Amino acid sequence: MGTVQRVQRVEDFQTHPDRYRHWKLAVDGAIATLTLDIDEENGLRPDDYELKQNSYDLGVDIELCDAVQRLRFEHPEVRSLVFTSGQPKVFCAGANIKMLASSTHGFKVNFCKYTNETRLSLEDASELSGLKSIAALNGTAAGGGYELALACDEIWLIDDGSSVVSLPEVPLLGVLPGTGGLTRLVDKRRVRRDLADLFCTKAEGYRTKESKRYGLIDGALSRSKWDAGIAERAAAVAAGSPARSSQGVELPRVDVEIGDAGSRVYKYVTLEVDTSGRQAKLTVRAPESVPPEGAVALRDAGCEAWVIRAYRELDDALLHLRFNHDTVGLVLLHTRGDAAAVLAHDAALEACGDDWFASEIRYLQARVLRRLDNTAKSLFAIIDEGSCFAGSLFELSVSADRSYMLEDDDGNVRIQVTGASDGRYPMTTGLSRLQCRFLGEPERIDDALAAGEALDSADAFDAGLVTMALDDIDFEDEIRIAVEERVSLSPDALTGMEQNLRFAGSEGCDSKIFGRLSAWQNWIFQRPNAVGDEGALTLYGHPTRPRFDWRRT
Amino acid sequence: MGTVQRVQRVEDFQTHPDRYRHWKLAVDGAIATLTLDIDEENGLRPDDYELKQNSYDLGVDIELCDAVQRLRFEHPEVRSLVFTSGQPKVFCAGANIKMLASSTHGFKVNFCKYTNETRLSLEDASELSGLKSIAALNGTAAGGGYELALACDEIWLIDDGSSVVSLPEVPLLGVLPGTGGLTRLVDKRRVRRDLADLFCTKAEGYRTKESKRYGLIDGALSRSKWDAGIAERAAAVAAGSPARSSQGVELPRVDVEIGDAGSRVYKYVTLEVDTSGRQAKLTVRAPESVPPEGAVALRDAGCEAWVIRAYRELDDALLHLRFNHDTVGLVLLHTRGDAAAVLAHDAALEACGDDWFASEIRYLQARVLRRLDNTAKSLFAIIDEGSCFAGSLFELSVSADRSYMLEDDDGNVRIQVTGASDGRYPMTTGLSRLQCRFLGEPERIDDALAAGEALDSADAFDAGLVTMALDDIDFEDEIRIAVEERVSLSPDALTGMEQNLRFAGSEGCDSKIFGRLSAWQNWIFQRPNAVGDEGALTLYGHPTRPRFDWRRT
Repeated sequence: MGTVQRVQRVEDFQTHPDRYRHWKLAVDGAIATLTLDIDEENGLRPDDYELKQNSYDLGVDIELCDAVQRLRFEHPEVRSLVFTSGQPKVFCAGANIKMLASSTHGFKVNFCKYTNETRLSLEDASELSGLKSIAALNGTAAGGGYELALACDEIWLIDDGSSVVSLPEVPLLGVLPGTGGLTRLVDKRRVRRDLADLFCTKAEGYRTKESKRYGLIDGALSRSKWDAGIAERAAAVAAGSPARSSQGVELPRVDVEIGDAGSRVYKYVTLEVDTSGRQAKLTVRAPESVPPEGAVALRDAGCEAWVIRAYRELDDALLHLRFNHDTVGLVLLHTRGDAAAVLAHDAALEACGDDWFASEIRYLQARVLRRLDNTAKSLFAIIDEGSCFAGSLFELSVSADRSYMLEDDDGNVRIQVTGASDGRYPMTTGLSRLQCRFLGEPERIDDALAAGEALDSADAFDAGLVTMALDDIDFEDEIRIAVEERVSLSPDALTGMEQNLRFAGSEGCDSKIFGRLSAWQNWIFQRPNAVGDEGALTLYGHPTRPRFDWRRT
Repeated sequence: MGTVQRVQRVEDFQTHPDRYRHWKLAVDGAIATLTLDIDEENGLRPDDYELKQNSYDLGVDIELCDAVQRLRFEHPEVRSLVFTSGQPKVFCAGANIKMLASSTHGFKVNFCKYTNETRLSLEDASELSGLKSIAALNGTAAGGGYELALACDEIWLIDDGSSVVSLPEVPLLGVLPGTGGLTRLVDKRRVRRDLADLFCTKAEGYRTKESKRYGLIDGALSRSKWDAGIAERAAAVAAGSPARSSQGVELPRVDVEIGDAGSRVYKYVTLEVDTSGRQAKLTVRAPESVPPEGAVALRDAGCEAWVIRAYRELDDALLHLRFNHDTVGLVLLHTRGDAAAVLAHDAALEACGDDWFASEIRYLQARVLRRLDNTAKSLFAIIDEGSCFAGSLFELSVSADRSYMLEDDDGNVRIQVTGASDGRYPMTTGLSRLQCRFLGEPERIDDALAAGEALDSADAFDAGLVTMALDDIDFEDEIRIAVEERVSLSPDALTGMEQNLRFAGSEGCDSKIFGRLSAWQNWIFQRPNAVGDEGALTLYGHPTRPRFDWRRT
């Protein structure tokens, strides 16, 4: 009864509304509508599953991620985003079960991580960009469908006597609502834990009355009042969120040249994969031209500006690393170029103040850095001759599990900490990377920020900003040995270790989604009760009932 | 190459220093010393493993738990507790690997949970009882041995040229330092995350110099200065912790009658197990006599006092439930007796103010309730005729995943919230159970605490204090259906769900140990790279090297 699990490369994480298969994006003044109308036969692995009941796979979420990102940049006039369904009776049935059952463990985990990041980007857009979202559930929202709604600012459910919200994962599939569902229920919507327990074990879900009473939705509307009611909410929400700009900036496709073994060469980023060595080299290059000065010039430069282009390239490279290079266990982070140019571009961005586009760029940089933090690969920053870990790029070195810095005779190799490290790029815990690093020595944060100049390796080491400072006799050898050792260790143990060492400090809703919810989900995704031949996930949709090993752990 | 995994009942969680096989407890005025000298051949499963190198199994930790508890109650004069080893060159090599490799997944998880609770009880003793602990590492402390040290207030390592501290789990065993190690490194000792990364991948560990530099220890002493130096620290620590009392209260054995199917009848607690129904009934009874009034009378009553006896019995019952009834998925929490008596005993305890013994009783109650929160079984509180969910026993009902309350005609069935629910029994998150329950409606906490009287089911339901209020026509049926449904669901999914719904609110070091660290460890304990035939844990000690599936997840 086993299901064959297939790995499929994900060819492309970029898309455009013109090419969406599953979502329709409509913009009307300050209000945008994303209508989910999934093309059943055009999932990423059409031979393995059909996307029935408006259920989704990674391809659907790639479009969603693109749409949210695009609205923030291309349509800053949009203040209110309405999610709704183009299919009768069903808003969204959640992640496709046959897709999950026929995916490898690694793909399942990466898929959930990506969908979690997308949902968080929706909340990020609300909090930082004032792009408020409304889940207009004109049909049943089950599982991941309701989890998408939970990531919105408001949830409305049609009162048609049959539509429900539900999280049927536990009772029907033997897994968790793992796309933030459990966490958002009790930590975001603050649904009482016993009511959440009732809800999460009620496969058939709740209609409007109980959903409203339990705080699962914000309101209900009858079919006759639905369109007008949602339009009214969308207008009110839009009116309540201050206007930003009427003119957006286009997000063009990120160009890349693809080389041997899946290496990817972008303008400012290069990803080189050493498959047999189970490692990759990820290089970010400094800009080579002067920065656009001022908000107008920055908008004119658009996505060609280094401050956004480099990070979009890095983001794309990280996704390919995660999904298409699963045996790569270690990423060596390099930078190349003129640190002064990095600082100049950082400074020009900062000088734009709270200009909407400049702000969006910073938020995007922050999301990309969080994607790096949450990548299940070891990260070593290599601070060598020609590197430029300065300003925003210094954050790469403090995202890393370790950093190795060359102690050169001339003192050319330097790092530089700037205000970019002063909370501009918060981690999922809400802390800056320096706060996380110096949890026990907070005075070092101020020292580092106050330094005001580039530090050579001796000073950087003394300031606690790098893991190791090594002279040129030892540098290559030490790194070689460290790399060999790292890639020899159990990949699972490393993932668990890094997940525990990277996120020091107290945790809130966002970090609990990855640290608590996802960890438990990963455990369950490994258990025979879910994925064994007689497991609930494997047998979903078959006439056979699952058989459980009843031992509670 | 597979290892046979055996389940062994744990016959007894109670012990006494006279019967310790592995620890020697010596008390000298304000200073106690616990010397670890493990009896290799007397592990809990001597046919499966020998406890070489001062490595431990559950039996060793049961003694440790007993010792810490006993010091708090029987030796309130002790202000400083020194941990040291009775074997040359090794303080403690951590959890025994052959024991782990030959244990079922469920036992491994329960074992780690218990050791985590014991370590936390040591920190609890330091914070609340002023019983400060010093890890005097007179030999190498590896893995769980160093994790025990991390739970102490101070760590000293002998400078003999060979002794080290180490966490070799990741490099040698392909698992995590899961007894709080990773979390305490970065969140308690606030070791910089990159240094923690170096340390946790360095199988051979660090000697004094690097350990001191990285903050892994507080100090080092040469062999010639060791005894005097540790004695001096112990005396200084003891002198710095205010005296409590010179006269302790004995902790006698908790009596129990064992019945059919493992049922356990204590004086105030009964555990009835329905193995085929995969459920248990846990009943706590109210006291039947008047409470001891005042601190002196309370000490005279000692562990016979209901306020401590009932909770010690509950603790013992929970441990038996966890280890010896693994297929029980649901626990029905009942209370029986006179609510007024519960309140009178609670009030008499409270009236003792900060008397040391009264305080110790409250801390113990709090630990038992946290043990309940952390038990991987569903909990339903049944508030029926004859029940007494009042005062401290009300906490049982808000520990539960759900509570069902009978709406009787006479209004005899009542609950009562008192100051006992006002932060006296914090969860691992630091929140009270009412704070956790009403995260979104904090005004309800004040309302509940201000009520000042017993509430019938209608009022309790309106106040949000129970999940369901049901009249006597529906009560039995609803519960029967809910029970049948609960025990039919995937036990893994339920564990994951409950771990996510029970701990709303932000997380700190204690809750991260269970929610983040343990969750990742449980995942790894399930992975072939650790426990498969060629996994690192399975093959530890064999000449064969492990073979890893290199896919990073």
